[in-house]
Amino acid sequence: MRGYSVDLVGGLSDADTTVQSMEDASPAKWHLAHTSWFFETFLLRDHVSGYRIFDENYAYLFNSYYEAEGDRHARPERGLLTRPALDDILRYRAYVDAAMTDAITGFGPEQSKLVALGLHHEQQHQELLQTDILHLFSRNPLGPSVRNILDDAHIEPVKLDWITGASGLHEIGHDETKNEFAFDCEGPRHAAMIHPHAIANRPVNNREWQEFIDDDGYKNPAYWLSDGWDWAREQSIDRPLYWRQREGLTEQFTLSGWTEIDPEVPVRHISFFEADAFASWAGSKWDGARLPTEAEWEVAAQNGLPHKGSVWEWTGSAYRPYPGFKPAAGAVGEYNGKFMSGQFVLKGGSDVSSPGHIRDSYRNFFYPHQRWQFTGLRLALDI
Amino acid sequence: MRGYSVDLVGGLSDADTTVQSMEDASPAKWHLAHTSWFFETFLLRDHVSGYRIFDENYAYLFNSYYEAEGDRHARPERGLLTRPALDDILRYRAYVDAAMTDAITGFGPEQSKLVALGLHHEQQHQELLQTDILHLFSRNPLGPSVRNILDDAHIEPVKLDWITGASGLHEIGHDETKNEFAFDCEGPRHAAMIHPHAIANRPVNNREWQEFIDDDGYKNPAYWLSDGWDWAREQSIDRPLYWRQREGLTEQFTLSGWTEIDPEVPVRHISFFEADAFASWAGSKWDGARLPTEAEWEVAAQNGLPHKGSVWEWTGSAYRPYPGFKPAAGAVGEYNGKFMSGQFVLKGGSDVSSPGHIRDSYRNFFYPHQRWQFTGLRLALDI
Amino acid sequence: MRGYSVDLVGGLSDADTTVQSMEDASPAKWHLAHTSWFFETFLLRDHVSGYRIFDENYAYLFNSYYEAEGDRHARPERGLLTRPALDDILRYRAYVDAAMTDAITGFGPEQSKLVALGLHHEQQHQELLQTDILHLFSRNPLGPSVRNILDDAHIEPVKLDWITGASGLHEIGHDETKNEFAFDCEGPRHAAMIHPHAIANRPVNNREWQEFIDDDGYKNPAYWLSDGWDWAREQSIDRPLYWRQREGLTEQFTLSGWTEIDPEVPVRHISFFEADAFASWAGSKWDGARLPTEAEWEVAAQNGLPHKGSVWEWTGSAYRPYPGFKPAAGAVGEYNGKFMSGQFVLKGGSDVSSPGHIRDSYRNFFYPHQRWQFTGLRLALDI
Amino acid sequence: MRGYSVDLVGGLSDADTTVQSMEDASPAKWHLAHTSWFFETFLLRDHVSGYRIFDENYAYLFNSYYEAEGDRHARPERGLLTRPALDDILRYRAYVDAAMTDAITGFGPEQSKLVALGLHHEQQHQELLQTDILHLFSRNPLGPSVRNILDDAHIEPVKLDWITGASGLHEIGHDETKNEFAFDCEGPRHAAMIHPHAIANRPVNNREWQEFIDDDGYKNPAYWLSDGWDWAREQSIDRPLYWRQREGLTEQFTLSGWTEIDPEVPVRHISFFEADAFASWAGSKWDGARLPTEAEWEVAAQNGLPHKGSVWEWTGSAYRPYPGFKPAAGAVGEYNGKFMSGQFVLKGGSDVSSPGHIRDSYRNFFYPHQRWQFTGLRLALDI
Repeated sequence: MRGYSVDLVGGLSDADTTVQSMEDASPAKWHLAHTSWFFETFLLRDHVSGYRIFDENYAYLFNSYYEAEGDRHARPERGLLTRPALDDILRYRAYVDAAMTDAITGFGPEQSKLVALGLHHEQQHQELLQTDILHLFSRNPLGPSVRNILDDAHIEPVKLDWITGASGLHEIGHDETKNEFAFDCEGPRHAAMIHPHAIANRPVNNREWQEFIDDDGYKNPAYWLSDGWDWAREQSIDRPLYWRQREGLTEQFTLSGWTEIDPEVPVRHISFFEADAFASWAGSKWDGARLPTEAEWEVAAQNGLPHKGSVWEWTGSAYRPYPGFKPAAGAVGEYNGKFMSGQFVLKGGSDVSSPGHIRDSYRNFFYPHQRWQFTGLRLALDI
Repeated sequence: MRGYSVDLVGGLSDADTTVQSMEDASPAKWHLAHTSWFFETFLLRDHVSGYRIFDENYAYLFNSYYEAEGDRHARPERGLLTRPALDDILRYRAYVDAAMTDAITGFGPEQSKLVALGLHHEQQHQELLQTDILHLFSRNPLGPSVRNILDDAHIEPVKLDWITGASGLHEIGHDETKNEFAFDCEGPRHAAMIHPHAIANRPVNNREWQEFIDDDGYKNPAYWLSDGWDWAREQSIDRPLYWRQREGLTEQFTLSGWTEIDPEVPVRHISFFEADAFASWAGSKWDGARLPTEAEWEVAAQNGLPHKGSVWEWTGSAYRPYPGFKPAAGAVGEYNGKFMSGQFVLKGGSDVSSPGHIRDSYRNFFYPHQRWQFTGLRLALDI
Repeated sequence: MRGYSVDLVGGLSDADTTVQSMEDASPAKWHLAHTSWFFETFLLRDHVSGYRIFDENYAYLFNSYYEAEGDRHARPERGLLTRPALDDILRYRAYVDAAMTDAITGFGPEQSKLVALGLHHEQQHQELLQTDILHLFSRNPLGPSVRNILDDAHIEPVKLDWITGASGLHEIGHDETKNEFAFDCEGPRHAAMIHPHAIANRPVNNREWQEFIDDDGYKNPAYWLSDGWDWAREQSIDRPLYWRQREGLTEQFTLSGWTEIDPEVPVRHISFFEADAFASWAGSKWDGARLPTEAEWEVAAQNGLPHKGSVWEWTGSAYRPYPGFKPAAGAVGEYNGKFMSGQFVLKGGSDVSSPGHIRDSYRNFFYPHQRWQFTGLRLALDI
Repeated sequence: MRGYSVDLVGGLSDADTTVQSMEDASPAKWHLAHTSWFFETFLLRDHVSGYRIFDENYAYLFNSYYEAEGDRHARPERGLLTRPALDDILRYRAYVDAAMTDAITGFGPEQSKLVALGLHHEQQHQELLQTDILHLFSRNPLGPSVRNILDDAHIEPVKLDWITGASGLHEIGHDETKNEFAFDCEGPRHAAMIHPHAIANRPVNNREWQEFIDDDGYKNPAYWLSDGWDWAREQSIDRPLYWRQREGLTEQFTLSGWTEIDPEVPVRHISFFEADAFASWAGSKWDGARLPTEAEWEVAAQNGLPHKGSVWEWTGSAYRPYPGFKPAAGAVGEYNGKFMSGQFVLKGGSDVSSPGHIRDSYRNFFYPHQRWQFTGLRLALDI
């Protein structure tokens, strides 16, 4: 599984994996190192006697945000680390992997839980590595591609339809009685009250987004949250992040470079603010259109929601703790809980997500202005 | 009722009512004019034939944020308007009041609703006028006072106690069948699921806040949300907004100037970030301590929650629409709905709130870093 | 002489004199107080035994930038001081004036020098008071006027002509042997080497500036210093500070409010960057056109340069110390010397300057982007 | 000569040459490409028929600031160009070099002048490449070194002595009658008036700078220009850029990594503001101490000023045009002239300067806060 991270940098140069294109993104090399530091720190250092730290400097360089683990390199400066080189980091990974292989058979249940956490953590960074390199390459006038395949196979049109949602009390969140991995913030499982509504059978696609643009959706403040309107004005936002007009065509920057937009493919790289404005605009066609809540989405998914998993779908729910949530003790407890303000929940998963992360209880979260992830939306409706 | 607004500027000079001390705050004069513009625009202009606008420039100067009402003076420049003078604005108020008195008997139910909205809007600004002048005077090294009475009568100590909350499904939100005023965001009334918990019998007081400070509450990242920690570091936050140390005493800036802290009085002028950190810290005394949710608070209030109404109490609930919420059509629809991102709900009401606003369904909202309002907290507990 | 300061606020309200419209500007009330503090501090406090400070807080509030005089109120917060009121400051002035009247006959030569400095300091602030109130009123959509006269009497056209300048070594700077007041930075008098050149017989006027605009002077980077070009792009600069287009006319905001531009009047409220760009553009008409140096201007003035004194004329000389310059000891030494980086010298004087300041050796100085002063230019030419 | 640029990146990785550590600095790869673009554009493209552009994109990517050459990649984004790779740029250099070799014999005098300009331009970038990589490595907690030699051979103490300067009129600036290369801003040669003064026999050294620190030089506003004081407070400046304290020793980051300070070596990596403050502080030892003017320095150099050339020496002269200076026509005219505001002149040259640039008339220039160059100072004295 960890090998996939290395596969992802297969076509990248040392320089490609070093540069940080914005504060929100991290260098690919940093992702490779940080995920290894996670195993080295929380398993090898803490639970394997005699383990010898690969490089004493790495704890400082590759801790992301764990205050309990001490001082760390400032996030906006991650891109200044031309040394260690990619080769050094690959050696670091091999060293950690070897030590983990030796140690793993001796781990008890507590350590095994941390191993599972480390692996799912790695999978999250595999997704981020791709979204971050996409952002870096999008800023290069040469428009380099990462992969030699097209991202989006052509999709057959799917007519928009409305599925009546379950209402009343329903259980959501990770079920601890099942022996499956979940992040701490996915639980505790609890009853959520769901009000009458319908939910769309698929995400909003590029064609529909183009209609929103053509109908001055980006220019009419009536559709927008106040913060969203201010953000869009300040940043001159008038289309999804990676769209451009070129000789009469609408193109999108992808991991394969610039490609023509497919109207049937789910729109992506939009912020919560844009998603919410789209839903308000859609209210003129479908009265009561809005973003689904997290609970609505999750219960619909339990009941077989179609066409999920190609884009992360913004919900209308703020990312806050579930009833009874308690972060774990120690540094690992900083994993999710401390980010529970100012962000919104996304559900589903994307083309660059690890398949195991496309589970119904998964709670992804980003700030409402962020859009370099593979983020889209699906409409819901008050009925 | 409108006369109270004028009473509030009784001891203030023209200059006092003109200056804007930060972008979040507005000049007192602006509050007086804006609330009058509200009546002039949405009632007199729209519903009274033959009404003559007092001054054609005022629509531009005193529209707050209604996009549908056209261009407006930039918010950060409200404090540059030394003209019109306070006397001009008082004449404007008298003119609008006279026209309203003439017109009011002829209004139908639709207009009467707008009158009620205008009056409650005015009451909100009566509170803001006081919080904003308090902020302005707090920045003056001379520490002027607005009133010649003490803000806080001495309070007898109340022992902290825990009230077991109702759980299961409970109705919250404004009940439209009762013929009482409420803002649009307070409804629709709906069933909310409440999980087992207890709630404190009174807000956190200054003495308890001092313990938090003394126990390095502001210095330990383990208690803080990540955004809160960053905010506190950048702004060098280490105490409530208006506290200072002076010759061994802890003082607080109030509408009566600098006064010694009363340990039994509810702490106020704290941000959501601070309130949340306090609750985390309190978890070491009371396992599972946290902020109450909006629904928990409101149901507790329906059941007679003691000691509410002297400070706005931060809840752990993001300010988002209730199920089935739809903003009103037209400019008035911008009143609440467009602010539903990034803010948290406060319940209760404060010493400077209009008594009518201290109702259980009232949803006050501010950004998590804001603290110039009379904001405090009350603890809840998972049980 | 000090009475003129009070005359200047004759038509202003307490609020008008309180607000600070930008960090570069100060409230009128602050100018009145600061100039009084100067006399109180450097004369009454230091040299008059038994003098009782008017208000102990004022030293903190009204020190401008004298580090040696201790802590002071932050410059960007000068506009928050609604108290003390204008009336308080007028009483302060009367108190200081009375004490000065009593004391002045007893002063020795050292103190008399400080009195002269205080009076010239006051005159500088009389000019600043007017430029600052002009800026404040320019930001008010109501466009209030300060005076009920027109600023600019109509001027008869003056044909542009070139005066051959003196070249070789010439003395410039304040002549200490003459018994006249000058600021420390105006000396020592010294020989300056002047190279062959001509200088225009009058400043550039509005008509010529309009030609510069019409010829895309603001749009062609070839005319601009690199820093100036960046500044103009960032600030969207495309005309002098107080110009606007209105129903086909070009208007200018003045102390009398908005008035139509007179094409023969010297252009004003332009930055050094704009002045320098204009001179480069003028090079296409007159080969070698440029701004005059300070020495060229001063020697020309000694020889009777016509039409000086209605606008401050930007020179091409950076504001640096004259050979042998030494600041005075103590706080008064901070008067000029510490500002000798990053600024350019202006010569001449303006319609709002004290007549006594329109002397040849006077060195006015501002940053190259500043333009709220009465700043214009006169061309020179390499020959 | 161009080969030396490639030598300089000998020990660097592709990533090392790609990252931009701050807006002022550029990636090493960018220096290599930009200097080649200079030859390709101003010589091969403009003067060699049949020349085929290596890559059409490079004009956009590697134009530095020539407005006349059209749109270009934004300076702060130079570090995002992970492609083209270092190898691509080395191929670009070889391609341009080959074309130049073919073309050079056919060039007339006009082209030969441009070749000389291109070579001196390259030499400037050879210096910048080193200062920029030093900055990048200084931000890496691993402290990598570029060279395996020590930067500073030990220097024997040189007693500070004062050399009486020439005074009166003296010629400075590039002498066009001599057949030597100079940048346009070095002329025209002209007479400058020099006032009585002395100049130190060597630059200020680390020992003397340590005395300044120990005597609270960074903490006493009396020594500082106002802008410098504000800058030092905001940036928390209390020592030269690359100094640190480590286990009781003072160390400096150099191209060989962290090394102990040699007290006899000239201090470097100080800003003009610091240099000026040092000179003010030195005034307590030597009355009238200050920075030399450009003319004083240059005439002293003509007369054999000792110990120049190891650090660039800040002068007290603003970087402004010499009398009669005219920039060249066309894009090449943007080389120097448009930077003539806000910067100060440095004379001498440093350990990383091309030997040919250590000529008396050379005018180096930087903003008064910049200090990542090899910048130091030498004192002068009014006598």
